[in-house]
Amino acid sequence: MRMAQTDDSPAPDATTLKLYELASADETVRFSPHCWKTRMALAHKGLNAERIPWRFTDKDVIAFSGQGLVPVLVDGEAVVNDSWRIAEHLEERYPHPSLFGGDTGRAVARFVNSWADGTLVPAIIKVIAVDIHNRIAAKDQGYFRQSRERRFGMSLEAFTADTATAREGLRHALAPLRFTLRQQAFVCGATPAYADYCVFGMMMWARCISPVELLEQDDPVFAWRERLLDAHDGLARHAPRAQ
Amino acid sequence: MRMAQTDDSPAPDATTLKLYELASADETVRFSPHCWKTRMALAHKGLNAERIPWRFTDKDVIAFSGQGLVPVLVDGEAVVNDSWRIAEHLEERYPHPSLFGGDTGRAVARFVNSWADGTLVPAIIKVIAVDIHNRIAAKDQGYFRQSRERRFGMSLEAFTADTATAREGLRHALAPLRFTLRQQAFVCGATPAYADYCVFGMMMWARCISPVELLEQDDPVFAWRERLLDAHDGLARHAPRAQ
Repeated sequence: MRMAQTDDSPAPDATTLKLYELASADETVRFSPHCWKTRMALAHKGLNAERIPWRFTDKDVIAFSGQGLVPVLVDGEAVVNDSWRIAEHLEERYPHPSLFGGDTGRAVARFVNSWADGTLVPAIIKVIAVDIHNRIAAKDQGYFRQSRERRFGMSLEAFTADTATAREGLRHALAPLRFTLRQQAFVCGATPAYADYCVFGMMMWARCISPVELLEQDDPVFAWRERLLDAHDGLARHAPRAQ
Repeated sequence: MRMAQTDDSPAPDATTLKLYELASADETVRFSPHCWKTRMALAHKGLNAERIPWRFTDKDVIAFSGQGLVPVLVDGEAVVNDSWRIAEHLEERYPHPSLFGGDTGRAVARFVNSWADGTLVPAIIKVIAVDIHNRIAAKDQGYFRQSRERRFGMSLEAFTADTATAREGLRHALAPLRFTLRQQAFVCGATPAYADYCVFGMMMWARCISPVELLEQDDPVFAWRERLLDAHDGLARHAPRAQ
């Protein structure tokens, strides 16, 4: 049974919440864009979780979730996978502060999430695919190379050969975000919420696994990313990055 | 001074609200995507307005608004231009039913609006630019051709030469919307609101001025457009289309 968080039901601590996160060869480096959405959502709610490193090939470790991708959140009896469903779970069980600002805000945030996944993932992977390969655990490298080369129809090296054009493509893809951020500090208005985290997760993906700087300093998206790096006590800014 | 609508201040009728809308040669055809955003927003609020046809070159007619673009809404003493600012004005003065569902919903709707303007306008204009030219008032045609050919860097005819590729580009651009609409009936959830109208305005632009069908029937975007054509007593479905 699910109960809303109230003054009588304090937030669970890390002994209750467990989050499985994709890790690089260095297990302190957690670089999945979708895990970062969840990480920021937990911080937004003031929740701590035991953060368990997981590798692409550790399918058996999360088999209890009924599928093979992270993030997976274990919250007491509840096992939830998929970052969007985790966000909805957190909003239902721990309503304040809200991730969505109501039903309309939640519905429209789903559009932003779809945009980030469908537009920014393909733009950023063209910059960082080889960096990911070179920094993940040795046991993951074959899986990563084979599955991505099948998807891209070419070698990782060929796919990422023209970084300058790929970065230009990303900056073009960011136009709707840039225009929005000329009008307001965050996608969600004066303070960040889940629609911001959906996009910011993409930035943390690159930041944690690649030395490439995606943005120009005079880009409003750069300034927005700075604000989110500082949010929630600098959680994202202090996150380990792969060497 | 602005006053929120209450039970003591009934909605104004068409003698109070005036909306200047872009018209084609046939003045009953109102095809501006941004005017359609406003039209749907007014219908959402249950408001009627006197709808005044306006042509691209009628700059003097709306000079009182301090600029030269429609939509322009006159609401008693208030004169508001720019569809986004009009939506905010309507939400403030006539709060129910809400266009945004709160501050977060409003902020995130701005992202959707930016996406529609920045992504869909360029994709659709590549299909319909010549259709627009051929259906607007004769006095507007020179202005339209010159301003757009300067922007596109080529003739309208060259710009729209490859309609099949342009339609394919549009369908690709609609991917985040399509993915969202596989999860929910409207961008704003179970019922439409302003973020839907921001995107739907783009569809009405093409529908009113061009015979080209932009979407495939099996596209979730097609079904969503059908639902919005039927919304508010079929306002959009019954709107005159250029012959």
